[in-house]
Amino acid sequence: MNILVGQSGGPTAVINSSLAGVIAGGIESDKINKIYGAVGGIAGVLEDDIIEITDFSVERLALLKQTPSSFLGSCRKKLGSDEETYEKIFGIFEKYDIGAFFYIGGNDSMDTVDKLSRYGNKTGSAVRICGVPKTIDNDLVITDHTPGFGSAAKFVANCVRQLALDTAVYKMKSVIVLEIMGRNAGWLTAAAALGNDADVLGTDIICLPERVFDAEKFLEKVAKNADKGVAPIIAISEGIKGADGKYIGESLSLKQANDGFAHAALGGVGRIVENLISDKLGIKTRTIELSTLQRCFSQGASKCDVEEAYAAGYESVRFALSGETGFMPCFKRLSDAPYKMEIVPHPVCEIANYEKAVPDNMITADGMGITKDFIKYARPLIDGEPERIYENGILKFTTR
Amino acid sequence: MNILVGQSGGPTAVINSSLAGVIAGGIESDKINKIYGAVGGIAGVLEDDIIEITDFSVERLALLKQTPSSFLGSCRKKLGSDEETYEKIFGIFEKYDIGAFFYIGGNDSMDTVDKLSRYGNKTGSAVRICGVPKTIDNDLVITDHTPGFGSAAKFVANCVRQLALDTAVYKMKSVIVLEIMGRNAGWLTAAAALGNDADVLGTDIICLPERVFDAEKFLEKVAKNADKGVAPIIAISEGIKGADGKYIGESLSLKQANDGFAHAALGGVGRIVENLISDKLGIKTRTIELSTLQRCFSQGASKCDVEEAYAAGYESVRFALSGETGFMPCFKRLSDAPYKMEIVPHPVCEIANYEKAVPDNMITADGMGITKDFIKYARPLIDGEPERIYENGILKFTTR
Repeated sequence: MNILVGQSGGPTAVINSSLAGVIAGGIESDKINKIYGAVGGIAGVLEDDIIEITDFSVERLALLKQTPSSFLGSCRKKLGSDEETYEKIFGIFEKYDIGAFFYIGGNDSMDTVDKLSRYGNKTGSAVRICGVPKTIDNDLVITDHTPGFGSAAKFVANCVRQLALDTAVYKMKSVIVLEIMGRNAGWLTAAAALGNDADVLGTDIICLPERVFDAEKFLEKVAKNADKGVAPIIAISEGIKGADGKYIGESLSLKQANDGFAHAALGGVGRIVENLISDKLGIKTRTIELSTLQRCFSQGASKCDVEEAYAAGYESVRFALSGETGFMPCFKRLSDAPYKMEIVPHPVCEIANYEKAVPDNMITADGMGITKDFIKYARPLIDGEPERIYENGILKFTTR
Repeated sequence: MNILVGQSGGPTAVINSSLAGVIAGGIESDKINKIYGAVGGIAGVLEDDIIEITDFSVERLALLKQTPSSFLGSCRKKLGSDEETYEKIFGIFEKYDIGAFFYIGGNDSMDTVDKLSRYGNKTGSAVRICGVPKTIDNDLVITDHTPGFGSAAKFVANCVRQLALDTAVYKMKSVIVLEIMGRNAGWLTAAAALGNDADVLGTDIICLPERVFDAEKFLEKVAKNADKGVAPIIAISEGIKGADGKYIGESLSLKQANDGFAHAALGGVGRIVENLISDKLGIKTRTIELSTLQRCFSQGASKCDVEEAYAAGYESVRFALSGETGFMPCFKRLSDAPYKMEIVPHPVCEIANYEKAVPDNMITADGMGITKDFIKYARPLIDGEPERIYENGILKFTTR
């Protein structure tokens, strides 16, 4: 049989490491003949935009493992309920003699996997449908964590540490508002706390979407830290909300409070919070949006993440060959220290369309900080430096 | 005798590597007894905020070499012409039995070195006054380049490369406006071109302060590239100016042209250019400001830069001991391939208060691109990965 693999949703630093794992698993098995890739995810399948990727040398697989973004391209397509679409997709599977389809992605992609799997079951298709987890948001349920999170978290943590040193050089006090991705779950914003060490408290105000943003209490804590001259980095999730349940980034009341600063409306939540601090406290404030860098900075990827992303792809092929379908490989933590994981398949129907928020025990009582439970959980995920291949001073990549 | 060292101006990824070089040079010489550091630059000298830093272990020096930002703190103080200030400074030198003063910094700091040196000459002081170059702006004259530039350039280049891959995943065309530091010289913005390789043209619109920004021609080139689906990254120096000589970031005419986008005024030049593109061409555009990350990202520092910064500090001590004063160690390029440099002292009076712009042969005829001459010049400076010491997934640093 042949296999088909696609990538979907926002890119990460290690989504191609999972692709490398699927390709390596495919090459190793004598049951698998050709390996195909769908260009642009499930939309590419529907357009019959399929390329063969069987012939990957060991050297090229090593480059693929360190190439950020989606080698095969991506899409944001969500499947509807019309039979026609599914018929077309399974028609493509038949055309290429596909025995197993692997879809590397996050929440929306697992919805696609679930729907394809249901359709396959209903129609008695033999094609195994497999999800491979990836998302910097770390918001998939059942699995301990998701590939992509560790590397993004490591980038955030190192930025916090380095920016904290940079901010401390002048005697005048100033703060940085660091705007971090994660619309509905605060995992990546929480990772800012990993940038603290015994020497320097880089940040201890960390605002997640899991807690209501209270401007008054927030300003109190900012003023207190500024007085003490500690923790110049304020980590803000792009998804923080006010008591009215609305995103602060779209909050009219806060914008109006910032008279004359209507521009903040379009500058994102970071600028709104920046204006709050500088207007109300008169502290010099600068906003830094980590933007897409936090999801594509493979130069700072964690070895743990790169290897686990690869393993998720590789094991998926093994699971599919052993007859599993409609599953996603999940990480099951066996111990924190030494850090030990095992990968087990789990029905994707229990994963798709659920979201895992940061739990209460990882958030401090004041709702603006992170506890040691989070540090214990997340630290192993950002650990280790993979061997990196450079050329002319920039990381070497491979493209289609 | 004892020596005193200070740091000044904006931090870089390797300014502490130069400090490590001064300390190592001081420790090695049997003519030098104690090594002192001024906390907060020349302002710290004036406040008698002096600490002893003689006892650095080999291990701590290794950490110092990879610690970004200014270990000793910084200031932005420019010396005036009042005798009293100079008397006070030389009084502090006397108090601590200082035989040589080392000031690590950029253009403004070299002005300080020059002024102190003139005062010393006038008064017959035996204290040797030494400048040690550092600036991500690369705008000091005489020297081939400045420590700090290579690492910042490497960060910019790797960001361009990674962001170009990230932007390419969706079939819809979009561009990123990358706002890069450098108010008066475009060296660091030019470094975006180092992010291109044979596979992927990440950027070919690079706008420097050295050329007038012509919005019409700019939009033409953006539209042409977007049609071809190439070069999604547009590198913009924060210091680009219009034909009226005013910074685009403050240009009223462009702001007015963006009706209803008065917010752009405060979002920096990147947002203004973003609005230009999205308004006039209807192309999806995102601005990324690299902000202070580009000067403090030691996690991505170039080995060449780290070693040269160290050598600049170390050689300064040697030069001072051999009797030189009022100098700055300059890099003299012996060959491009293999890359070879030597370090020679040069009178600081011929360096302070001059600025080196990107020369004509490095800018394309259309004024919006970079030639191979720049690539040849800059590529060796971003080369090599230093050994890095990590702890818990984040780079390990040392602080005062």
